[in-house]
Amino acid sequence: MAKDKLIGVDLGGTTIKFAILTDAGEIQQKWSIKTNIFDEGAHIVPDIIDSINHHLDLYQLDRERVIGIGMGTPGTVNRDKGTVTGAFNLNWKTEQNVKAEIEAGTGFSLTLDNDANSAALGEAWKGAGNNDDEVSFVTLGTGVGGGLVANGQLIHGTAGAGGEVGHMIVEPNGYLCTCGNYGCLEQYASATGVVHLAQDLAEEYVGSSKLKQLISDGDEVTSKIVFDLAKDGDFLANEVVDKVAYYLGYATATMSNILNPSAVVIGGGVAAAGEFLRARVEKSWQTFAFPTVRNSTRVKLAELGNDAGVIGAASLARA
Amino acid sequence: MAKDKLIGVDLGGTTIKFAILTDAGEIQQKWSIKTNIFDEGAHIVPDIIDSINHHLDLYQLDRERVIGIGMGTPGTVNRDKGTVTGAFNLNWKTEQNVKAEIEAGTGFSLTLDNDANSAALGEAWKGAGNNDDEVSFVTLGTGVGGGLVANGQLIHGTAGAGGEVGHMIVEPNGYLCTCGNYGCLEQYASATGVVHLAQDLAEEYVGSSKLKQLISDGDEVTSKIVFDLAKDGDFLANEVVDKVAYYLGYATATMSNILNPSAVVIGGGVAAAGEFLRARVEKSWQTFAFPTVRNSTRVKLAELGNDAGVIGAASLARA
Repeated sequence: MAKDKLIGVDLGGTTIKFAILTDAGEIQQKWSIKTNIFDEGAHIVPDIIDSINHHLDLYQLDRERVIGIGMGTPGTVNRDKGTVTGAFNLNWKTEQNVKAEIEAGTGFSLTLDNDANSAALGEAWKGAGNNDDEVSFVTLGTGVGGGLVANGQLIHGTAGAGGEVGHMIVEPNGYLCTCGNYGCLEQYASATGVVHLAQDLAEEYVGSSKLKQLISDGDEVTSKIVFDLAKDGDFLANEVVDKVAYYLGYATATMSNILNPSAVVIGGGVAAAGEFLRARVEKSWQTFAFPTVRNSTRVKLAELGNDAGVIGAASLARA
Repeated sequence: MAKDKLIGVDLGGTTIKFAILTDAGEIQQKWSIKTNIFDEGAHIVPDIIDSINHHLDLYQLDRERVIGIGMGTPGTVNRDKGTVTGAFNLNWKTEQNVKAEIEAGTGFSLTLDNDANSAALGEAWKGAGNNDDEVSFVTLGTGVGGGLVANGQLIHGTAGAGGEVGHMIVEPNGYLCTCGNYGCLEQYASATGVVHLAQDLAEEYVGSSKLKQLISDGDEVTSKIVFDLAKDGDFLANEVVDKVAYYLGYATATMSNILNPSAVVIGGGVAAAGEFLRARVEKSWQTFAFPTVRNSTRVKLAELGNDAGVIGAASLARA
């Protein structure tokens, strides 16, 4: 029987998403389970194995048809060894033998990569990247991650830090980052970065503003609130969004000037602000992009939402 | 007879360099001719053909042993069509059918790329890159160019502008660049950029300085003079070098943060300043590089000098 099915797994700190796809990348079944991080995350890999085996039985899918499993994971992936380290949100304290265990438990080969790279592959293959060989992806969530596809392949670099676009310096001597450097993109374009900017700009702002009032009152402010207020016309909130867009435009232009992808794709929770954010990012990007790049690279929103991870993970199993 | 020889051609505005190499990249013969840019550069391609044919006869090299020719050229290369446009320093006003003509004139297949990409391949293969699959290269000459190797392949991007690192913005609202943008690396780290910085810093400088005196007297100042004076301890000249190194460190750190190469290699005429420049660039690079990158990527000087072009060009013929 011809092998024509892919299994994609998107391992996250709160849920594990699964999908069975055709080898053309169409999702046929998807499901998810809660991530059980108790006991130093010891249940995670067994849960993944059980869930895959159970669902293959449930859907009565002939196991001979499965090409393999691809999985995106937090932490640092050693692709040669098939192990994961430093996935703190999974409560994994030591190096995990993810590949060997899942292969033994399912009988399928497993290909691993980090979650941002997997999402990048998903958007490049079936989303905003239109299956082009040159696609750059930046994802704006709690942090800022990314994945870069050039010549049809992910750029991992020599130690796996390729595509760490959240740590490009966009403001020398700027905000201190968790990585120890100052002025990383992550400090300006992540959900927490947006709030940090809002707090700082509120301090200097003297006009009337709902956002200013929320901050002065000590109410909780999220990046979603900032964007919603900006859409409602709040002056200070718009100043914050302009600043976020400035830095994102600068960073994506630098990525574009170096890589000249057909698309630089913006995804993640903060990008839920949609065209409102994209249009402003593009305006800043236009200022900083090299003319040839301005005419050949496009700034796009991600299109796959939460499915990018499982689709991209599945694509890892194709090779 | 086994094919085991490569021909590399490095086409420049003043000379055309040639080499015959083993398939392992060892130069066996090299020579050069002057570039004849008269008659809209119409003699260039015929001169290349004649010179190759003549030298193969001269060295009595069996033509059956030649794998192919690789060539680096100024201008914009259309690799699919094998043509070159916009090579203004060659006096070529229209699109040139370089590949078809050289193939017809020599009987060998020709692979073309631009000169900076060719030099990058040379350094990656036989120079500072130690034949690693992840090498970034920046060349500091009249302009600033570059070439990026990831997964063992050059990054061309969607329109051939991949690796145009000279047009990364290192100083928003900085010096106006020939590309129309403001603050491109090229305006700070090319030979002309160094002199521009020297002139600007001299204006504000009030102490005693040989460099200041040269500029005040209207004497010719070159980037070599600036570096030589800095090495002699001239205070102003050292301020200029520090500024050049700051921008180069920032730009190479950004390249490193995005690509995490094993080496980011600095070459070109300005890099003749050697370790004096490299050490300062690395100091700035350390400030801006992401920790994982700081521990896995190295800042190195190019090692092949003028041979990088022919060696890298020859490597194009290997595929």
